[in-house]
Amino acid sequence: MAVSISHSWETSVADSINSIYLIFSAYLVFVMQIGFAMLCAGSVRAKSTLNIMLTNVADAVIGAISYYLFGFAFAFGTAGAHSNPFIGTTFFALKDIPNESSYGYPYFLYQWAFAIAAAGIASGSIAERTQFGAYLIFSTFLTGFVYPVVVHWVWSSVGWLSPNSSTPLFGSGAIDFAGSGVVHLVGGVAGLWGSLIEGPRLGRFDVLSGKPFPIRGHNPTLVVLGTFLLSFGWFGFNPGSFTKILISYPDDAHEDGGNWTGVGRTAVTTMLAGSTGSLVTLFGRRMLVGHWDVMDSCNGLLAGLVSITSGCSVVEPWAAIFCGFCSAWVLIGLNALAVRLGFDDPLEAAQLHGGCGAWGLIFTGLFAKEELVIQVYDSGKIGVTRPFGLLMGGGWGLIGAQLAELVAIVMWVSITIAPLFYFLHRMKLLRIPVDEELAGLDISCHGGYAYIDHVQPEENHQPELLFSESDATYRSIQAEQHS
Amino acid sequence: MAVSISHSWETSVADSINSIYLIFSAYLVFVMQIGFAMLCAGSVRAKSTLNIMLTNVADAVIGAISYYLFGFAFAFGTAGAHSNPFIGTTFFALKDIPNESSYGYPYFLYQWAFAIAAAGIASGSIAERTQFGAYLIFSTFLTGFVYPVVVHWVWSSVGWLSPNSSTPLFGSGAIDFAGSGVVHLVGGVAGLWGSLIEGPRLGRFDVLSGKPFPIRGHNPTLVVLGTFLLSFGWFGFNPGSFTKILISYPDDAHEDGGNWTGVGRTAVTTMLAGSTGSLVTLFGRRMLVGHWDVMDSCNGLLAGLVSITSGCSVVEPWAAIFCGFCSAWVLIGLNALAVRLGFDDPLEAAQLHGGCGAWGLIFTGLFAKEELVIQVYDSGKIGVTRPFGLLMGGGWGLIGAQLAELVAIVMWVSITIAPLFYFLHRMKLLRIPVDEELAGLDISCHGGYAYIDHVQPEENHQPELLFSESDATYRSIQAEQHS
Amino acid sequence: MAVSISHSWETSVADSINSIYLIFSAYLVFVMQIGFAMLCAGSVRAKSTLNIMLTNVADAVIGAISYYLFGFAFAFGTAGAHSNPFIGTTFFALKDIPNESSYGYPYFLYQWAFAIAAAGIASGSIAERTQFGAYLIFSTFLTGFVYPVVVHWVWSSVGWLSPNSSTPLFGSGAIDFAGSGVVHLVGGVAGLWGSLIEGPRLGRFDVLSGKPFPIRGHNPTLVVLGTFLLSFGWFGFNPGSFTKILISYPDDAHEDGGNWTGVGRTAVTTMLAGSTGSLVTLFGRRMLVGHWDVMDSCNGLLAGLVSITSGCSVVEPWAAIFCGFCSAWVLIGLNALAVRLGFDDPLEAAQLHGGCGAWGLIFTGLFAKEELVIQVYDSGKIGVTRPFGLLMGGGWGLIGAQLAELVAIVMWVSITIAPLFYFLHRMKLLRIPVDEELAGLDISCHGGYAYIDHVQPEENHQPELLFSESDATYRSIQAEQHS
Repeated sequence: MAVSISHSWETSVADSINSIYLIFSAYLVFVMQIGFAMLCAGSVRAKSTLNIMLTNVADAVIGAISYYLFGFAFAFGTAGAHSNPFIGTTFFALKDIPNESSYGYPYFLYQWAFAIAAAGIASGSIAERTQFGAYLIFSTFLTGFVYPVVVHWVWSSVGWLSPNSSTPLFGSGAIDFAGSGVVHLVGGVAGLWGSLIEGPRLGRFDVLSGKPFPIRGHNPTLVVLGTFLLSFGWFGFNPGSFTKILISYPDDAHEDGGNWTGVGRTAVTTMLAGSTGSLVTLFGRRMLVGHWDVMDSCNGLLAGLVSITSGCSVVEPWAAIFCGFCSAWVLIGLNALAVRLGFDDPLEAAQLHGGCGAWGLIFTGLFAKEELVIQVYDSGKIGVTRPFGLLMGGGWGLIGAQLAELVAIVMWVSITIAPLFYFLHRMKLLRIPVDEELAGLDISCHGGYAYIDHVQPEENHQPELLFSESDATYRSIQAEQHS
Repeated sequence: MAVSISHSWETSVADSINSIYLIFSAYLVFVMQIGFAMLCAGSVRAKSTLNIMLTNVADAVIGAISYYLFGFAFAFGTAGAHSNPFIGTTFFALKDIPNESSYGYPYFLYQWAFAIAAAGIASGSIAERTQFGAYLIFSTFLTGFVYPVVVHWVWSSVGWLSPNSSTPLFGSGAIDFAGSGVVHLVGGVAGLWGSLIEGPRLGRFDVLSGKPFPIRGHNPTLVVLGTFLLSFGWFGFNPGSFTKILISYPDDAHEDGGNWTGVGRTAVTTMLAGSTGSLVTLFGRRMLVGHWDVMDSCNGLLAGLVSITSGCSVVEPWAAIFCGFCSAWVLIGLNALAVRLGFDDPLEAAQLHGGCGAWGLIFTGLFAKEELVIQVYDSGKIGVTRPFGLLMGGGWGLIGAQLAELVAIVMWVSITIAPLFYFLHRMKLLRIPVDEELAGLDISCHGGYAYIDHVQPEENHQPELLFSESDATYRSIQAEQHS
Repeated sequence: MAVSISHSWETSVADSINSIYLIFSAYLVFVMQIGFAMLCAGSVRAKSTLNIMLTNVADAVIGAISYYLFGFAFAFGTAGAHSNPFIGTTFFALKDIPNESSYGYPYFLYQWAFAIAAAGIASGSIAERTQFGAYLIFSTFLTGFVYPVVVHWVWSSVGWLSPNSSTPLFGSGAIDFAGSGVVHLVGGVAGLWGSLIEGPRLGRFDVLSGKPFPIRGHNPTLVVLGTFLLSFGWFGFNPGSFTKILISYPDDAHEDGGNWTGVGRTAVTTMLAGSTGSLVTLFGRRMLVGHWDVMDSCNGLLAGLVSITSGCSVVEPWAAIFCGFCSAWVLIGLNALAVRLGFDDPLEAAQLHGGCGAWGLIFTGLFAKEELVIQVYDSGKIGVTRPFGLLMGGGWGLIGAQLAELVAIVMWVSITIAPLFYFLHRMKLLRIPVDEELAGLDISCHGGYAYIDHVQPEENHQPELLFSESDATYRSIQAEQHS
């Protein structure tokens, strides 16, 4: 009897501690939405500010309804006999939630905050030229269906890529702890297709020569604010992905450890990878372009954070620094490639979230440390063995699963999102008319410019390159739109 | 002896967990003050930015001193024989705080953050035309006296509206969990009187025809930032109002529950109501005015959040969605009414916080669920019965108490605040002179415009309607001011 | 056996609770970096925005690497026989971290966030005229060496100023709970030397008469945002400095207390001191200059917060109010003195963080309360005696140690930082060329102005005082630079 009372007290304490940890982490992840809104607003021209901020608010509020109604169900609906490794099939509209402590409300809130981040990433890629109606359709589809399915694969206990599955892929399953692949690669690939199908913004590349002209965002202060807010929110994203902090590991020789140790280490690897990415991008670009650019330090910070998101809990701090170092070059390289290929992503979202997300998956397959993998995925059980990082001597199982996740995500998002964007494009619902793009989305669709003293700047400060009705691109797009 | 040691350990653990929960919630509520400052700054014209931000800083710092000296005492000063149901009478200057764990410092901090929110709401209603000296008097009076008295009624254990009272009103007491009434309705009604007595801003309505001209805020980016920061802070406001997370409910058949479950559910209902309010306002206004407006999505978000604040802990998620749905129409309707009546509230604070706050009280009286009410207000004790939502079959007790709170707040704030504003108005201390209003409060009272490149825009972009010395309103106001 | 299991469970619970508390506090302290970035950006002219924001990002990311590699080791590397009272000598690159619960990862993260705050303070003093390369050197040196050494003295258990030392200075050791001295005075003195050696910005003082011309920041909204974010982060800085919340004090007669009580009280004293500082500065400056200035309320808020940072945990709320009251006059007085002496610190950082930091150390020596000192530094052990505040009857031991810390910090920072700045100055690596300063750092070093519609304002709106090539200062500086 005394035992049962004691058990109840212990359960209550554990539930309280874990709930506090998870719900405050969820709040932090919500801050990332504020960060995205500010980052996006600052990175576009003043004439598109209202539009892009609306997409960020819309992500959050549409995501709330769609994730409540079916998104969460597709991701985690795995009750008993109904479960399958490809998609969840129960818990629609939170029916039977909370249930015996497996999924509580804080978990739903936490997962919702993740879902809206994925949509937020893609919104940057198609900024400044997309009809808002098309965005609503895309955002609902991504948050409510495409993204949750990937979550089910990797993070539900029955997913075919899950490391917690009873029959994990290659005896390992993919380790994507907080979602370099699940969140960032999904968002990046979705944005890539949107941006490819829409084509670049008018004025981004010269019509005849293809020569690129940088289009500067209207407010770098907002970019810094947004980047820092995202970094702050990332502390909820990465360490928060433990979801429970009060899990102790069996006593081994040298340490009295538990998830609380892992949480701290994860915050440190996250911070170190982001910082290294920032520093290397800042210095690398300084060498390449000749001046110190705060935008580089911001993008590099995000590149490092995206890259470490997969392996943050299972690598040592020194490996996190290496991860961030490479992420900077992935970003710099992909940005150079994008310019060469005439690809225009106003926020570099495809390069940053897609490219560095992919690198993050590979990095984890190379550097995951055995002891940490067993702590995080088997609560440190003694005697368990698991594949771990290839370069750490852990064999091919993990890196194989990581590559499988990478390929599967790229294919899944491509076969679902590309047709959607193409369909919208063919129906002339995707891109705004040329004259509206020149005037700006805000004045054409959102009731006015953001700032009352708005002065339409001459594009790129290169008036001779301004697109006019005689321009080839202008005429070809317009012709297509009026056909 | 073993028992006493164990008890002490258990108490320490419980106190630590509950303190962490409450104090971090308090920090989040403080973030709402940052949100208000940004929301207000962005919603007014550039020429009033310094003024409105100062009112927000002043709310916080004056509130600190007045709430420390007497506000907290009026609200919660209920020691022993001295307690009465109308106003607290002890704990002035935190004397005897902390005492045996009933009120600790975190509780004071939490309540202070609430108090300054109430003043912040009202500051929006009287923006752009109020003398700062008058605002100081108003803010001190509201935070230090008017608001704490309402808190005492509803949230102290001896208040005449308290659901925890030994003789609760109508056998029920009012359920205003986080203060749709106590905070938002109080702030909204106070702002209503201030705005009514001051009259509209020059240029808001045509002098002869009464035709309204929208006055746009100078920076929608700040509005989005402020709205999101408020939403973030609301997670401290609503779930935080449990104040203790480690309260377990007696084991019943199907669940091992406690306040930690309630906390998560409250965060989810809060998020769903806000999101629904945002979506419905966005689409509703799209139908009415013809364009997608990010300002609508922001105001709708806040409308939903204000409405659910009363019932957030005692309703199911589906009811929260209904709550948010209606809040959008309350806001849209009251805004239309305000325009028709020539009422000018620069931040729509009276409509949003007052109107949706009132709806929130009614909503709770209709939809509160029996099981949840007993969990939240009786720690889930088995065998307890309580009135609950009318539409849920819970009888008239709760809705009656909700209406009593609504009427009581409207009357109490009216009989205290309206005379104050009227007195200031008669003493010519309330509204700034007409020429200063045209030039802007910042240049006349705060040492200069906010932005060094300030260009005074032509009001409303409708120069022919600019008020000049020949205008009727101008002359009448000026005549009154010089009389 | 049952006991050992129970012990393990209790340890796990305690570790989880303390980790949650510390790591979320660390996240809050990181928010201060966002606050600094916004405060600094808003306080400088538009032409220097990119530069100052880059210094803030650079502080964080360089600090991450240098604090990881050696900063933390210098500060806390005190294993066994290797420890000495002046500098730490182990834990480089986090080797042997975490170790048996003395230092975990959350502690490292928390200390990193403190370290970058110190550099952030100094960056304000040398804003708008410093070469970025020089800043990188300075920031690395401060965060990686100068600051950690001071931390070692005061906060490591073996430091010569530590109150936890086995042989504390004057039987007391210095009480600098969250770092009025360790962080703010260090940053302030470093900034003082930088600003002194660089000299004032062009246009700040008249060349001939020395008459000062105020240089207004370009965006007060950012200043308010930054100040509020700093205040929010301060809740991590001050209450967070307990680092463990689950420490119970022995039962005494009247209260069941522990660190959880101290945490709440510390948050309240912090809030009251900041609020009082804000109010007094607002009203004091209103009397002196004749208008209400939101900038005064912001700076006063920070002054109060800086001052209370040393004693926040060991004084009563009424004393915190007194602390904030005086801090306002320290700030107002030092600002007046700076103008008189021709000293130009664009963010008043030397006056605010240096001056009020020094006042904070003295204040603690005067007002620390015996009971609270024993609670905070001896976990409330019964029978312990310690020196405490001089005015509270606690003798000269504490105030002596406080003054020793004050003098030691001023001297240590001066002998390390002043030569560095002087060397950079002599090598012509410190200050940017005159023409670049007139044009602005952003256009000369960072690839363009922050805002695409940048219009170079006439300095001070006093065109007749604009520096031209005929100006004496201009010529003297230029001559020196080209010599």
